[in-house]
Amino acid sequence: MSEERTARRRGRGGSGARREARQRTTIHQLPAIIRRIPLTEVLSAEGLELIEANAETILAEIGIEFREDPEVVALWRDAGAEVDGARVRLPRGLARHILAAAPRRFTQHARNTERTVLIGGDTTVFAPVYGPPFVRDLDRGRRYATLEDFENFVKLAYMTPAMHHSGGTVCEPVDVAVNKRHLDMVASHILLSDKPFMGSVTHPERAADTLALARLVFGDDFVAENCVVVSLINANSPMVYDATMLGALKTYARAGQGCVVSPFILAGAMSPVTVAGTLAQLLAEAMAGMCVTQLVRPGAPVVFGTFASSISMQSGAPTFGTPEPTLVLLAAAQLARRLGVPFRSGGSLCAAKLPDAQAAYESAQTLLPTLLGGVNFVLHAAGWLEGGLVSSYEKFVMDADQLGMMQVLAAGIDLSENGQALDAIREVGPGAHFLGCAHTQDNFQTAFYRSAVADNNSFEQWEAEGGKDAAERANALWKKRLADYEAPAIDAGVAEAVRDYVARRKAEMPDAAV
Amino acid sequence: MSEERTARRRGRGGSGARREARQRTTIHQLPAIIRRIPLTEVLSAEGLELIEANAETILAEIGIEFREDPEVVALWRDAGAEVDGARVRLPRGLARHILAAAPRRFTQHARNTERTVLIGGDTTVFAPVYGPPFVRDLDRGRRYATLEDFENFVKLAYMTPAMHHSGGTVCEPVDVAVNKRHLDMVASHILLSDKPFMGSVTHPERAADTLALARLVFGDDFVAENCVVVSLINANSPMVYDATMLGALKTYARAGQGCVVSPFILAGAMSPVTVAGTLAQLLAEAMAGMCVTQLVRPGAPVVFGTFASSISMQSGAPTFGTPEPTLVLLAAAQLARRLGVPFRSGGSLCAAKLPDAQAAYESAQTLLPTLLGGVNFVLHAAGWLEGGLVSSYEKFVMDADQLGMMQVLAAGIDLSENGQALDAIREVGPGAHFLGCAHTQDNFQTAFYRSAVADNNSFEQWEAEGGKDAAERANALWKKRLADYEAPAIDAGVAEAVRDYVARRKAEMPDAAV
Repeated sequence: MSEERTARRRGRGGSGARREARQRTTIHQLPAIIRRIPLTEVLSAEGLELIEANAETILAEIGIEFREDPEVVALWRDAGAEVDGARVRLPRGLARHILAAAPRRFTQHARNTERTVLIGGDTTVFAPVYGPPFVRDLDRGRRYATLEDFENFVKLAYMTPAMHHSGGTVCEPVDVAVNKRHLDMVASHILLSDKPFMGSVTHPERAADTLALARLVFGDDFVAENCVVVSLINANSPMVYDATMLGALKTYARAGQGCVVSPFILAGAMSPVTVAGTLAQLLAEAMAGMCVTQLVRPGAPVVFGTFASSISMQSGAPTFGTPEPTLVLLAAAQLARRLGVPFRSGGSLCAAKLPDAQAAYESAQTLLPTLLGGVNFVLHAAGWLEGGLVSSYEKFVMDADQLGMMQVLAAGIDLSENGQALDAIREVGPGAHFLGCAHTQDNFQTAFYRSAVADNNSFEQWEAEGGKDAAERANALWKKRLADYEAPAIDAGVAEAVRDYVARRKAEMPDAAV
Repeated sequence: MSEERTARRRGRGGSGARREARQRTTIHQLPAIIRRIPLTEVLSAEGLELIEANAETILAEIGIEFREDPEVVALWRDAGAEVDGARVRLPRGLARHILAAAPRRFTQHARNTERTVLIGGDTTVFAPVYGPPFVRDLDRGRRYATLEDFENFVKLAYMTPAMHHSGGTVCEPVDVAVNKRHLDMVASHILLSDKPFMGSVTHPERAADTLALARLVFGDDFVAENCVVVSLINANSPMVYDATMLGALKTYARAGQGCVVSPFILAGAMSPVTVAGTLAQLLAEAMAGMCVTQLVRPGAPVVFGTFASSISMQSGAPTFGTPEPTLVLLAAAQLARRLGVPFRSGGSLCAAKLPDAQAAYESAQTLLPTLLGGVNFVLHAAGWLEGGLVSSYEKFVMDADQLGMMQVLAAGIDLSENGQALDAIREVGPGAHFLGCAHTQDNFQTAFYRSAVADNNSFEQWEAEGGKDAAERANALWKKRLADYEAPAIDAGVAEAVRDYVARRKAEMPDAAV
């Protein structure tokens, strides 16, 4: 189904009143980025072919292990792979053949249709940090995350114009039992935001809960025909998929929902210490994992994901914002385009413990290549600190500011007559200034990106205002945004049904720690 | 003269002993970057042609003012321009015709031939911050710069492997009289470093002093035939060159020395509030200024410079690291390549008052496009703070770390058999790790860029080591580098001649404040 047709059919999903409530816009939001500038690439066609041939060699000679999932192994056998226990070897070309069924791009619907995003092609969708068990802010320092923190980050993402997606595990609400927290998380995304969101992957039953909640919002028929959830499926690199991830993958793929299949690689530990070696391995892993979605349901939406960084060869600790992961990111994006599937990577990654200069250098050195390389879906676009162990309130606000800049950069250069501004140059002439000229007056309000975080004042004024660093200014900003937060409109019946479902499911199970 | 021939002839510049002394290497240094990755570009050929046509319109209809310099105006008249007082209008095509004589690239020689750099083509040369009257460090805060600070920054640049150039006014030594400080600055570059350096431009006489000092080092004959100094000539945008800058430009161009002709533009004040308008104006200004070097001496080495950022339309304050200057930088680099001259722009620019997250975001958002866009000569590559008012010790060290990363990024992906690492993947197989495999053992020492500034340790270890932020770590690093500094070898006679020249010239003049 084309994007246009699904978009038109989307209207059938609920009653008129519900739809109207869903569409009420309370804050300024930006649409997903449509890149108007050329791509930054690092490998020639010859280099890409070499990597692709090596990935085929890995799949054919070494193979991938699909552990403790006989169903997936059987699917592979039926598809023509050579099976040896959990080890599956793919004849050259088989993976590419299977992936021909995958869509080049797909629409993920939000309950507010204005927030619906296209994933793939020339678009870039930003989603928040995913996974940290800790949070940090300037007032209370570093501590375990709670459901209140989770809700706060959902609210901050909702309040961020250039954040196109509500994400998934924006932090782990460790004050809720492991077997129940997915219910609170999905419900929070639905009730506190109207942006698209991600599903639980820690157990197939939790994936089923995610789908059940989505059906309450979008209606059964709509969910059956459209993607309303995308979920993160990590490989256990090198060359292993485990039963938990495969279980979630199958649940979502069968339901026609999106999977982001991501090798999680710290080069030097989970892959070779070289960029070209890492690329071949991650391509093999991503292709094999994505294929499973197509074996389960041909045409199911799937994203080629990579999370690839390096380790310090001295300490084994992960490092970020260094040149080797940038090369991996840019080349992997090229490989995904040649494969004809959407691509996920990048974000605002860092190893820093504080929202300091290290955090910012490393994040910018990841985020800018993310945009220039044409990444389609960007997890960890804001808030990531300490190698992903911490969701930082201050860093979320600082990163969010950078996302707004990426949105402007991607739009490229306005070559209209107004953009060319020749009359302004004629009017002003040599030695004068442009501050008061007609063209400046007409354009100044939208002329330049306005940072919410940066202080551009004189030293004297900055000092008079307390001499604050960026993190201190960000501290005030996130507090203001949470104070200003108003929940987006939602049909009262839908909200009640979501809350009832969560309460019922929680009551059905005793608390468990896994 | 080709680069190869000048390189061979370089040997004739001094006695064997002097040459040997000049070549003694005391610290690890990296050669100028040779970019192996494709360029990041933002405008199509059609867009570039539009900007070029608009620049010709500006030159032909509005013209450029060359103020208080009848000699330059006469040169223009002789070249076929239409002259009206200081205003010079260039018939379409004239500037490009004159610039056809300019070299596509040129060699700037250092007194240590290993530090000699090629400026233009696929190379990128990093030079330190230029111009700040203040310095800042964590211990003493913000204060006026002194000659001691100047010497310290020259030493830090010398100690930085990825800093290819010693730069010019790394800070203003305000404790030395304005009319004499250029002597101390040039002498410091010669005596405390062996990297290429920049000359004084504040008065034609000071440019002549720079050349006289260079002749003491390189020999008269060598300086007559080779570029041993490049100097920064700013336009007074919009569309004005003043007598001071033109005086220095003529002195250097006549001597066959390099000029970096740079419109200094804060868009919104010195140019239109649009990217396309700013591009047309800066192209017109740069072409007109560069032409003067060719009218004085056809073939003189010249660089198309731009310093282009924006202002806050609320306060008028300059802003950095925002998307509009990035677009200007990338497109201007394309324009310079079409013109066939080397290009200067970028650096590690920021408006931040402290070496904090704002400083780092803004600097990285400038530096990465600088590399990806193919900038050939990069002033302000390290140390810049507070819109260029401050040279920061801590930021110098943090930026220098980023320069090392750019050097690795520019080298691209190693596609050799060792780079492909297929045997390592075969050896390790599914579910194991790469830490101990033969390929990792063979490659780990050079595998990944090692940051000197970043802390990648666990939270617990970082906390046990004092919980320092990046600036605090950088503070310890610059102190250690200054403590470890050893002056590069120099022929004793040359050093004495340089010191004598400085002493004699200082004695000839009373102190003056201009």
